[in-house]
Amino acid sequence: MATRVVAGIDIGGTNTKLGLVDQQGTTHRSQRIKTGEYSNSSFAEYMLAIRNCIEEMIKGAEQDLELIGLGFGAPNGNHYTGTIEYAPNLVWNQIHSITDEMKKYYNLPVAVTNDANAAALGEMKFGGAKGMQNFVMLTLGTGLGSGIIVNGQLVLGHDGFAGEIGHSSFVLDGRPCNCGNKGCFEAYVSSIGILKSARELIQENQENTSLSSIPTEELSVKHIHYAAMEGDALSIQIFKQTGEALGTKMAEIVSYLSPEAIFLFGGITKAGDFLFPHIEGEMNRRVMKVFKNKVKVLPSELSAQNAAILGASALLW
Amino acid sequence: MATRVVAGIDIGGTNTKLGLVDQQGTTHRSQRIKTGEYSNSSFAEYMLAIRNCIEEMIKGAEQDLELIGLGFGAPNGNHYTGTIEYAPNLVWNQIHSITDEMKKYYNLPVAVTNDANAAALGEMKFGGAKGMQNFVMLTLGTGLGSGIIVNGQLVLGHDGFAGEIGHSSFVLDGRPCNCGNKGCFEAYVSSIGILKSARELIQENQENTSLSSIPTEELSVKHIHYAAMEGDALSIQIFKQTGEALGTKMAEIVSYLSPEAIFLFGGITKAGDFLFPHIEGEMNRRVMKVFKNKVKVLPSELSAQNAAILGASALLW
Repeated sequence: MATRVVAGIDIGGTNTKLGLVDQQGTTHRSQRIKTGEYSNSSFAEYMLAIRNCIEEMIKGAEQDLELIGLGFGAPNGNHYTGTIEYAPNLVWNQIHSITDEMKKYYNLPVAVTNDANAAALGEMKFGGAKGMQNFVMLTLGTGLGSGIIVNGQLVLGHDGFAGEIGHSSFVLDGRPCNCGNKGCFEAYVSSIGILKSARELIQENQENTSLSSIPTEELSVKHIHYAAMEGDALSIQIFKQTGEALGTKMAEIVSYLSPEAIFLFGGITKAGDFLFPHIEGEMNRRVMKVFKNKVKVLPSELSAQNAAILGASALLW
Repeated sequence: MATRVVAGIDIGGTNTKLGLVDQQGTTHRSQRIKTGEYSNSSFAEYMLAIRNCIEEMIKGAEQDLELIGLGFGAPNGNHYTGTIEYAPNLVWNQIHSITDEMKKYYNLPVAVTNDANAAALGEMKFGGAKGMQNFVMLTLGTGLGSGIIVNGQLVLGHDGFAGEIGHSSFVLDGRPCNCGNKGCFEAYVSSIGILKSARELIQENQENTSLSSIPTEELSVKHIHYAAMEGDALSIQIFKQTGEALGTKMAEIVSYLSPEAIFLFGGITKAGDFLFPHIEGEMNRRVMKVFKNKVKVLPSELSAQNAAILGASALLW
């Protein structure tokens, strides 16, 4: 008997990742398309390339696979309409229908949501949130995405765009954010935000940190982590500051949603003890008495490699 | 045939309001117990008084009524456990089980939640949120309560205490709040918070406002409203500032939940055009592009008189 699989497709500005995922979360085949190679193509042509890639994967698989649906994680993906809408990092930056394009090729369920929502579903289906009914996922990358699960369901809101905690205010009228507003949480806690804070701190403490030897434009969160492990006080301070910012925002999340856990996804979770105790300390210091020491702060259990594919497939599993 | 009713009971520090509500939202009988009269009684005795009051109302009704359940709105009411937990404004300020007490007298469903959650359910069942699947209710009184509806369901969170937007941060480490934290939204936008801001502004502008003739301890939001209607610039400014604070917090709410509408409940909604345009203006200025001019800001359609009773009964209807 053929193994039933869902195609999980993660659309990113740089790469489009595809995989065939079974109900246990095993990825049978995976591939990658450079999204940029289609920058002169129509959206329909890009969708056709995705379809061709799916067909190749099915044919190339060792086992007999039966495709039962397609799940897409995409920037500004709208679950209600099956579209992507004004995605800032894609050349197709108007409203484009993924479901309409895929219906040309498949008579199967097609589901779309944004990447952070997909990650939350992936965590619930295949990761550390198995069995949880109420939790929040924060994905830290270039930006900061979030997916909210309430009563076992994804929170999509009235228009499909709920879960933009990265664009809730952190410092009123503070740093400019890519979204056009000021002071968004993402402007402080994301790779870009953390590195901006780090550069400010390095500037003020040039003599006292090994980080000042790294050219500004090459500085990464990884460098800061390595320096922290070698005892660099400023690097340790950067993680403390980031952890406190996360803890402050998480206290807010708890007051809204009282989740069982808040998951963090992204390379920064590798910072471990440089980061998590500060998150938990600050969150518990700031929440109401009734919430103190109740909410778990956990690193995602999905591997960075195929979290997006698993999450996109979880839309249908 | 007897008309089926739910007993809606709103437990407050000053008054306990009771009513018998049918499925259309008609209150057949209502009564009031002074909560303070039971301040030397056990919780069980107070619950017995509520039971006796319900029985009196049923007997005194003109129509034949069939009681089919009891809904309680109570400070720190926990839907999952049927208890009130550490309610700061009640003499019974440990964990007390409403459902256990009521089961002594009735073999009927008993549901408990906090007053703001009850108000949200009342708005959905009997008020302006009929047919809405995603909305938020903010109740402005002495404090600021909130009830969140997602996918047509009340958001209770992992422990039953979700929806404490009044205790999310507004000004980091700002004004002390009754909850023990600092800078909570409730410390700025609630009767107490607004009057505190008003007194600060009056202090700075003594000569230029009719409000300075009112003794500080007597000042109320009503006074400010009357003065605004007579053209007092400072009073108009107080509502503008309050509206902008609400708009700022609502922009945050939208980024989390993308609701169809945010409802305001409380006497302050009477300020109408002194308040609402500032709320909407500030909210739409601060939200991401995808949310602009989408979310309605509406006054509750429930009457102040029996909103709490209707809301409590809506727990079961």
